[in-house]
Amino acid sequence: MISHASRRMFPSSACRMMSTSSFIASELTISPTSSPKEKLPKEELSFGDSFSDHMMEIDWTKEGGWGKPRISEYANLELSPASTGLHYGIQCFEGMKCYSTAEGGLRLFRPDRNMARLNSSMSRLAMPSFDGGELTSLLKEFCKVEESWVPQGAGYSLYLRPTAIGTHPFLGVDVSAHVKLFVIASPVGPYYPQGFKPVSLYADSVNKRAWPGGVGGFKLGGNYGPTIEPAKEAMAMGYNQVLWMWGDNDEVTECGAMNLFFVLEEDGKKILQTAPLDRGDILPGVTRQSIIDLAEGWEGVEVREEFPRMGDIKKAADEGRLLEAFGSGTAAVVSPIERIHYEGSDIDIDAGMGSDSITKRAWDDLNAIYYGEVNGPEGWGVDI
Amino acid sequence: MISHASRRMFPSSACRMMSTSSFIASELTISPTSSPKEKLPKEELSFGDSFSDHMMEIDWTKEGGWGKPRISEYANLELSPASTGLHYGIQCFEGMKCYSTAEGGLRLFRPDRNMARLNSSMSRLAMPSFDGGELTSLLKEFCKVEESWVPQGAGYSLYLRPTAIGTHPFLGVDVSAHVKLFVIASPVGPYYPQGFKPVSLYADSVNKRAWPGGVGGFKLGGNYGPTIEPAKEAMAMGYNQVLWMWGDNDEVTECGAMNLFFVLEEDGKKILQTAPLDRGDILPGVTRQSIIDLAEGWEGVEVREEFPRMGDIKKAADEGRLLEAFGSGTAAVVSPIERIHYEGSDIDIDAGMGSDSITKRAWDDLNAIYYGEVNGPEGWGVDI
Repeated sequence: MISHASRRMFPSSACRMMSTSSFIASELTISPTSSPKEKLPKEELSFGDSFSDHMMEIDWTKEGGWGKPRISEYANLELSPASTGLHYGIQCFEGMKCYSTAEGGLRLFRPDRNMARLNSSMSRLAMPSFDGGELTSLLKEFCKVEESWVPQGAGYSLYLRPTAIGTHPFLGVDVSAHVKLFVIASPVGPYYPQGFKPVSLYADSVNKRAWPGGVGGFKLGGNYGPTIEPAKEAMAMGYNQVLWMWGDNDEVTECGAMNLFFVLEEDGKKILQTAPLDRGDILPGVTRQSIIDLAEGWEGVEVREEFPRMGDIKKAADEGRLLEAFGSGTAAVVSPIERIHYEGSDIDIDAGMGSDSITKRAWDDLNAIYYGEVNGPEGWGVDI
Repeated sequence: MISHASRRMFPSSACRMMSTSSFIASELTISPTSSPKEKLPKEELSFGDSFSDHMMEIDWTKEGGWGKPRISEYANLELSPASTGLHYGIQCFEGMKCYSTAEGGLRLFRPDRNMARLNSSMSRLAMPSFDGGELTSLLKEFCKVEESWVPQGAGYSLYLRPTAIGTHPFLGVDVSAHVKLFVIASPVGPYYPQGFKPVSLYADSVNKRAWPGGVGGFKLGGNYGPTIEPAKEAMAMGYNQVLWMWGDNDEVTECGAMNLFFVLEEDGKKILQTAPLDRGDILPGVTRQSIIDLAEGWEGVEVREEFPRMGDIKKAADEGRLLEAFGSGTAAVVSPIERIHYEGSDIDIDAGMGSDSITKRAWDDLNAIYYGEVNGPEGWGVDI
């Protein structure tokens, strides 16, 4: 199917030229809605099922490059049924949050990381690149327009979803000649309204989320859909999420749609271990990297970016050296793990969130930056 | 991100109940367009960039099950920007053709195979199932409505694209509570208007299309987007398409978006070798299976469903035993291969389409069935 179509791709020189151009934040136009929606009481918010009044859109064509950014009323998209984004998985996204700080301001967290990852995902799908600083400026404008939609209080935020899809109506498997980058926003409450609720994982030896030489290191839509059915199966067995493994040694890669950390005791130190990024099958999570960056400054804690092996994790648990395990991601921040099913039996983990736990420390330190209590390292807390 | 959302999935019993129901062909409504489009001269048709007057749609909701099928004017879809099909790769499709036979009728080819595969793809993405016989009946009605869009003559057909997408506006990674199944149609000409044009392949040792434990055996949108950038790179090196490999032994899996066959000489016989399906990383192509089914009746030909290894293929070529190589798929039917780049050098293949070639025989035998010259095995040529 690819043959004829693929010969029509644009030459790499044209590609390079386009990649140096970007949309420009100063060209933004804003058309405020004339019928603002009623807001839910914040206690009734749940993740990702209600949306703010506006959306931002920027269109790209092969012929004309990037168009002008615009903010207008949140509305359905009109898409050709032949759009490349509906047929060939030409779609990628980011997850970010806009926080209302204690002083009444708005704050983003390390948006440069999301911009770099979105560029990386789009490039992997042969979509055009853009200037991350310009999109960050636009996101700030968008957050200002939606300021009344940013719920206040610990655990609350306006979840931002930048998304890029192929919109060209062409059934050849080819570079999408039309692309739409859009941003929608969903007000969200604390992931754990009644305090932390530890989750249980089922280590799936059949289904593999990603693979070396594949696209697990990019935030592509196609990485997520196939995880739903295995998650259903894990839930039917009484577990909350899937623990993803790879290879003959049952290397631990991720869990659910989160990165995964173990805390192990070794020679009187705490080892904070998570899968490394260099093989390309691990999502480079912003929360993951931030926890690593923070923990490198923690006394008595050694960060280890090496694939944990489930056999070793089980052995450490048997020997009483598996202290903690948690998932990390933008939605939940950290998600303590209390149980892992592996090869027919359960590994129980003390998912206590005591004051000396790494899980709790990561949670506290990140939240302090999110909500403006502290600024954290240079460039992390970005005030609007 | 998955945690909260995933607890909201419907129980497996409810799922099972729904999977026994289907939309019903007899409930079809047809709203003909009042403004038929002008048709291109058939010589100007190219693959997948022009579409017929109508489309077919069937919507499903978790609450109400499948709705009534309808055929109406080909038009843009109105989709929520939060649709699961735009964010999480909840999308899969089929490729089929409606042929105009020598006697003036319309014919489909093995539609039961496409129906089974679409059900399989949808199930892998936790979408609802349907009765394949009902969708085949609907496709027949659709082809009747679009009869004037089926171009006549050898190599011409109306390409049919059944597609299923998640339409629920919800950002949790979860079973999509709304689904749309739709069919669009594109009139297409011969893939090789000037006769066969053999293609060259670049054996990619870095990028892997699919993997054991993954979803390469399903026709999901997310399998296609990531192939575009590697194809661009192969073309920049002077090759038409990528040859996909897997594993330490460089097992040959597919090429471009096609299945891949080799013809090898062994002990005076012709061995027709292609990758097997049982590992789950090979798309179960209808053309692939049909060539296997036909070749099993050919004297002097032995079908071998075992992973070819590139080292063995190179050795066979060196020894003069690599007789032919070709890709197979609905769009091109068969696509002869004249050259494969592997580990720094080119393997040249005599891609002659002589009367004794397997490639030519597969082409001739399939086309005879497509265009109604013969009926082929029971259930292959399905007249409308």
